[in-house]
Amino acid sequence: MIRCACYMAPDGKLLDQLNIDQVRDCLATGEGLLWLDMEDLTNEDAELLSNVFCFHPLAVADCTSKNIHPPKIDDFEQYVFIIVHGINYHIESEVVETTELALFLGKNYVVTSHDIPMRSVSSVLDRVRKDGRPMRRGADFLAHDLIDALVDNIMPTINGIDEENDRLEAEALHEPKRETLTSIMQVKRSVLALTRVTLPQREIMNGLSRGDYPFISERAQIYYRNIYDHLVRIEMLTLGLRDMAESVLSTYLSSVSNRMNEVMKVLTLIATIFIPLTFIVGIYGMNFANMPELQWTYGYFVILIVMAVIGISLAVYFKRRRWF
Amino acid sequence: MIRCACYMAPDGKLLDQLNIDQVRDCLATGEGLLWLDMEDLTNEDAELLSNVFCFHPLAVADCTSKNIHPPKIDDFEQYVFIIVHGINYHIESEVVETTELALFLGKNYVVTSHDIPMRSVSSVLDRVRKDGRPMRRGADFLAHDLIDALVDNIMPTINGIDEENDRLEAEALHEPKRETLTSIMQVKRSVLALTRVTLPQREIMNGLSRGDYPFISERAQIYYRNIYDHLVRIEMLTLGLRDMAESVLSTYLSSVSNRMNEVMKVLTLIATIFIPLTFIVGIYGMNFANMPELQWTYGYFVILIVMAVIGISLAVYFKRRRWF
Amino acid sequence: MIRCACYMAPDGKLLDQLNIDQVRDCLATGEGLLWLDMEDLTNEDAELLSNVFCFHPLAVADCTSKNIHPPKIDDFEQYVFIIVHGINYHIESEVVETTELALFLGKNYVVTSHDIPMRSVSSVLDRVRKDGRPMRRGADFLAHDLIDALVDNIMPTINGIDEENDRLEAEALHEPKRETLTSIMQVKRSVLALTRVTLPQREIMNGLSRGDYPFISERAQIYYRNIYDHLVRIEMLTLGLRDMAESVLSTYLSSVSNRMNEVMKVLTLIATIFIPLTFIVGIYGMNFANMPELQWTYGYFVILIVMAVIGISLAVYFKRRRWF
Amino acid sequence: MIRCACYMAPDGKLLDQLNIDQVRDCLATGEGLLWLDMEDLTNEDAELLSNVFCFHPLAVADCTSKNIHPPKIDDFEQYVFIIVHGINYHIESEVVETTELALFLGKNYVVTSHDIPMRSVSSVLDRVRKDGRPMRRGADFLAHDLIDALVDNIMPTINGIDEENDRLEAEALHEPKRETLTSIMQVKRSVLALTRVTLPQREIMNGLSRGDYPFISERAQIYYRNIYDHLVRIEMLTLGLRDMAESVLSTYLSSVSNRMNEVMKVLTLIATIFIPLTFIVGIYGMNFANMPELQWTYGYFVILIVMAVIGISLAVYFKRRRWF
Amino acid sequence: MIRCACYMAPDGKLLDQLNIDQVRDCLATGEGLLWLDMEDLTNEDAELLSNVFCFHPLAVADCTSKNIHPPKIDDFEQYVFIIVHGINYHIESEVVETTELALFLGKNYVVTSHDIPMRSVSSVLDRVRKDGRPMRRGADFLAHDLIDALVDNIMPTINGIDEENDRLEAEALHEPKRETLTSIMQVKRSVLALTRVTLPQREIMNGLSRGDYPFISERAQIYYRNIYDHLVRIEMLTLGLRDMAESVLSTYLSSVSNRMNEVMKVLTLIATIFIPLTFIVGIYGMNFANMPELQWTYGYFVILIVMAVIGISLAVYFKRRRWF
Repeated sequence: MIRCACYMAPDGKLLDQLNIDQVRDCLATGEGLLWLDMEDLTNEDAELLSNVFCFHPLAVADCTSKNIHPPKIDDFEQYVFIIVHGINYHIESEVVETTELALFLGKNYVVTSHDIPMRSVSSVLDRVRKDGRPMRRGADFLAHDLIDALVDNIMPTINGIDEENDRLEAEALHEPKRETLTSIMQVKRSVLALTRVTLPQREIMNGLSRGDYPFISERAQIYYRNIYDHLVRIEMLTLGLRDMAESVLSTYLSSVSNRMNEVMKVLTLIATIFIPLTFIVGIYGMNFANMPELQWTYGYFVILIVMAVIGISLAVYFKRRRWF
Repeated sequence: MIRCACYMAPDGKLLDQLNIDQVRDCLATGEGLLWLDMEDLTNEDAELLSNVFCFHPLAVADCTSKNIHPPKIDDFEQYVFIIVHGINYHIESEVVETTELALFLGKNYVVTSHDIPMRSVSSVLDRVRKDGRPMRRGADFLAHDLIDALVDNIMPTINGIDEENDRLEAEALHEPKRETLTSIMQVKRSVLALTRVTLPQREIMNGLSRGDYPFISERAQIYYRNIYDHLVRIEMLTLGLRDMAESVLSTYLSSVSNRMNEVMKVLTLIATIFIPLTFIVGIYGMNFANMPELQWTYGYFVILIVMAVIGISLAVYFKRRRWF
Repeated sequence: MIRCACYMAPDGKLLDQLNIDQVRDCLATGEGLLWLDMEDLTNEDAELLSNVFCFHPLAVADCTSKNIHPPKIDDFEQYVFIIVHGINYHIESEVVETTELALFLGKNYVVTSHDIPMRSVSSVLDRVRKDGRPMRRGADFLAHDLIDALVDNIMPTINGIDEENDRLEAEALHEPKRETLTSIMQVKRSVLALTRVTLPQREIMNGLSRGDYPFISERAQIYYRNIYDHLVRIEMLTLGLRDMAESVLSTYLSSVSNRMNEVMKVLTLIATIFIPLTFIVGIYGMNFANMPELQWTYGYFVILIVMAVIGISLAVYFKRRRWF
Repeated sequence: MIRCACYMAPDGKLLDQLNIDQVRDCLATGEGLLWLDMEDLTNEDAELLSNVFCFHPLAVADCTSKNIHPPKIDDFEQYVFIIVHGINYHIESEVVETTELALFLGKNYVVTSHDIPMRSVSSVLDRVRKDGRPMRRGADFLAHDLIDALVDNIMPTINGIDEENDRLEAEALHEPKRETLTSIMQVKRSVLALTRVTLPQREIMNGLSRGDYPFISERAQIYYRNIYDHLVRIEMLTLGLRDMAESVLSTYLSSVSNRMNEVMKVLTLIATIFIPLTFIVGIYGMNFANMPELQWTYGYFVILIVMAVIGISLAVYFKRRRWF
Repeated sequence: MIRCACYMAPDGKLLDQLNIDQVRDCLATGEGLLWLDMEDLTNEDAELLSNVFCFHPLAVADCTSKNIHPPKIDDFEQYVFIIVHGINYHIESEVVETTELALFLGKNYVVTSHDIPMRSVSSVLDRVRKDGRPMRRGADFLAHDLIDALVDNIMPTINGIDEENDRLEAEALHEPKRETLTSIMQVKRSVLALTRVTLPQREIMNGLSRGDYPFISERAQIYYRNIYDHLVRIEMLTLGLRDMAESVLSTYLSSVSNRMNEVMKVLTLIATIFIPLTFIVGIYGMNFANMPELQWTYGYFVILIVMAVIGISLAVYFKRRRWF
């Protein structure tokens, strides 16, 4: 499905909603800048890419397939094919998942393809329709704006995980539940998923900012460098998140074990104090014919006092050894 | 055992079931494309490889030996010798094992050798017999199709492990058994076995797609690049599986420990409430001659009430401290 | 906010508190040395950087944004833009955090920018105002002095963490509390935060000392090499801190578990000695009509002695098997 | 001690047991192939190496010293000095240890030195004495045969460890003993020792097969490449062994902990059922003057039934909650 | 403090205890070989280094500062400045610490500086005074002898740690105490400290043996290579020590937990056997008016036999299930 087909003529005039013939013309002239955004590719769309743009069948297949593709960049001389990842806001899941944007960058066109609506693409499209700005400086800058918007979307997710970490730490300390562990595990998995796409993406941006590709003008390279720096920052922050999650896990495990220890200590306190006392009362419950103490007038009271002394002594002894 | 010997003449005619003299002719002309597939090599087959194809004795030895060989590529100028790994569907085992395909790629021939029947080779053979397609574009494309089919076979296994992980996570949470641990360990080992063959394989495909070998035409390189991308994806997925398995293991251990804690808490509850009460009834079971309480008319009922109050107080106290 | 604007003329005269026109003149002549220090950049300040110094908008944006930027160096031909990190003394936190200094180094000027007051910048400024020394040897040496002061500030923090580690080890051994664990976790996180900024910073200093940048004279390179050596030392020390923190954590966990074991052993001692004895006294508390022992004259005393023998034997047995 | 001194003349005649003057002659002519095998070097032997062969004193010192030397290769222009490791069958130990073979490879001679008898050297020597084969193709092939025999000896050890792993896994599951842990630890240490020598050895073989050394003819390089492949296989297998050992360790720890849990559960079952019942019988053992139940005709039987109901209810409750 | 100032004239005559003017002369002639060894540098000594030898102030500062400096090598054209580490025998500590030797190597002089007396320097000095040997072959060989003696000193320490590991393993198995853990932790820290200085030192020796520095003659390079080999060996041994320490730690933890389990099993045995029996005796201690068994002539004996049967059955049952 073609979601947008914009063309900015060399004189700065913006044409929206081109038909296929107009697209063909734009490509033929090699002037101005064309942006085609496609969502949830049909076979017909795929044919458009193959026939009109003459993209390599393997690159087109990567766009149509619903599989996950790791970030990569392929150089096909006439154009480069880039896959970058952002955060998927549309799949409701406890674990953060990434979504991919496929991007063809040619001399005077940019073609983007994605399976589900993407907030970052929409925001660039809105700005294009408002005043044409993102398309004024050429294909390399338009691609930059799209990738930049995608990468910027990662920051709120990191902040969200950060807050979740703080919440989990408090919960682990004060009220560890079984769900706490599940949540910690989900945070760890989210962070790992994030780490896994950030690293290759960083390398791709490094390549784009180093002048390895002729489609990126020298003026644009410094902007790609800036995305690279953002990804380095994201990497540093996710490393911090991972350490934090590890620490929360340790806190949780230690907290659970501490509670267990407290419970066991109470058992021990009660048992060690009352077991000997119960033994003593058992002695005087025996039915021997000849047990002199039983006949003493104050025997009962003496034994009550003796037991009180024993119980208190034990309690004091335990207290002193800091067991309770 | 020779399982197939096909020859596609330069005019596109397909000859099936060649005899050795015909094979010799094909090699002599240097035209058309010959594919020889061998299974469970006998010494006679090995001699055929050595004498007719003049393959290096070490490469032939790798084919005949039943040992495991890690993925590798050797360049013998006249041909390259490649070992790649797929999934072994024929050995019934809890742990996923890989099976290897040895492949000689020459100017106008491809020789494949494997110890047991391979689904991927059969599927390519079927397509060759149907319309000759995989052999129409030369030796490099035939080799590509064979390797591609092999690598594609890994995906279902990954999906299977993924489902097993989900099942194990649920089992670990709700009904942890000793067998659960064994299964988790097997999943971890499967994933590690997979990781171990994917990485070197990826590097081999990287080499093939970079033009390091003259037998791979430029047009074919991009297709080898595609296999490389598949392997990168498989690597990313297996990393995810490994994290998942680690997480399931943590869940299992924590779940087992939680159940133990629950059991211990019940012991503590019962013991800490009844031990003091048992002590009290013991007191009034003593046989002292002079125990005034025993003679009171309502002594028995008073003591029952006292004990009820103590028991309930302890229970409330424990409840409040969130021990139960 | 401009905190300082100093200019040292080629004849060594120092001008303090320049206005913007004077700054413009200094840049125009290309002689002498100008130092501009800015804190908590306003938009107006940012414009000054863009218009007067003609710094790249992305570099200026890095200065104005309040986000964390990892250490980096960008070469803009006319100047280099460096971000380095020191220790933040102004944020009161249990976990050590780093603060960043942005630094533009040009032919005859240095511009520094930071969000909060920095002790290292102040100390260099004081020395400049005292006798102008840090500005006498050119822009590269002034930048060196600023970075050196920043890096030197890390050492007291490392010593502080070292002492905290020692304190925590003693506490973990003799009086493990729940707070001990929290503190250990904070130390680990501080050390990781430190490690994370030291490594890239080290690489930047390596580049500056290798002559990759024309603004660093050969005479100054050896001084940058010295900062590099400091960072290597800091790295070695932080690695030691990390090992120490790991060891303290192990000690804590083992100490907690040892205490639990001691408590459990006492329970076992008391229970295993008194449970059999309580059973014996229970026997003689039974009300059978025919229990010969009960009628013996010394039955009671015999049974007391028997129980004492059993109790002592058990205690001796446990002692011998080194359980207590 | 010189264990063998063989010389194969250029005409293929084999001379066994040369004296030192003959050795000198062989070296002087520079033709044919000389193999000197030394065991447990005396100072006299060392002098022979220094004076007759003019080997560098440091290399000779490595041969005489009884210390362990990691695998390495040194190029002394006139010859290369190689240290490779195999498995030591002569030291009886639970932990697998490696033994080293020092090898000087010159234009027309190979000198081997080892501290204890080596099975691999003996087997090559036997084949030389039988038909002279290993010495027919030059010094590089003789060295190859020696190293190949050494590396081949590692496989049986790996198989042995593999079987030990299987035995330990079964033992850990069904009858975990303290010795099981010790054995697991020994297996882990054996595997680590193996890993540590395999990796540098692999790199040495890589160098020898790449043509870095002029003494290795192009024809021989492919054979050294084959040893390299063997070492890659050994590495893959030892990695598998390590994973397996880790898994056995987890199984052992979990198995021990499961047994403990079972024991604790029985304690809890018995205690939680009988503690409340004991309390009830204690109540009716009290000696209050006024306890109406005691006078009821069927009071005793009623209370027996009540207790049976309570006990069975508790048992059923526990069963339902899957605690037992 | 100058500890030694030796000069060997080109004719081989050795001058001991030179004064500063003589030192100046030696440097001026550029012939012979001068060795100056300094301990615990005063400011006066530092000035000597700056003025007479013209060493760079940063290198001199490294000598005077009491901080720890990681191993490094700096090339100052006229001389190289090397920091290497050995074992510190003078600080009494449970944890092995390293001590550093700073070394200036010039055309015809070697200057060494250290904070505390060093056994390795003294031993070289003794050999110089005996027959001048270490100074006969030039500055590069003298520096080699000093570094070699320093590295050789590490071996006894490794052996010591090895023995400590063996002792700790036995202690952990047979008599685990809290001090055992502390010792294990100290061994681990010692090994890590050792690892940390060995690695950079190895790289420095690699550089010196590769001919990167003009002061090292080709003849001497092979000797530096030998130190490199020693360091590789030390690295391999310390890796072994680390594995061993890990294994001892596991043994300790498992041993402690096994003892706890044994104790708990005894508790369970006693409790599970006596709790039901105590319940039975409680039953016959009840005071119901109508309890037929109590009136039976042999009721008491019957119940004793019943309880013996129950107790023995339980014990046999537990034994059969291998709990004890």
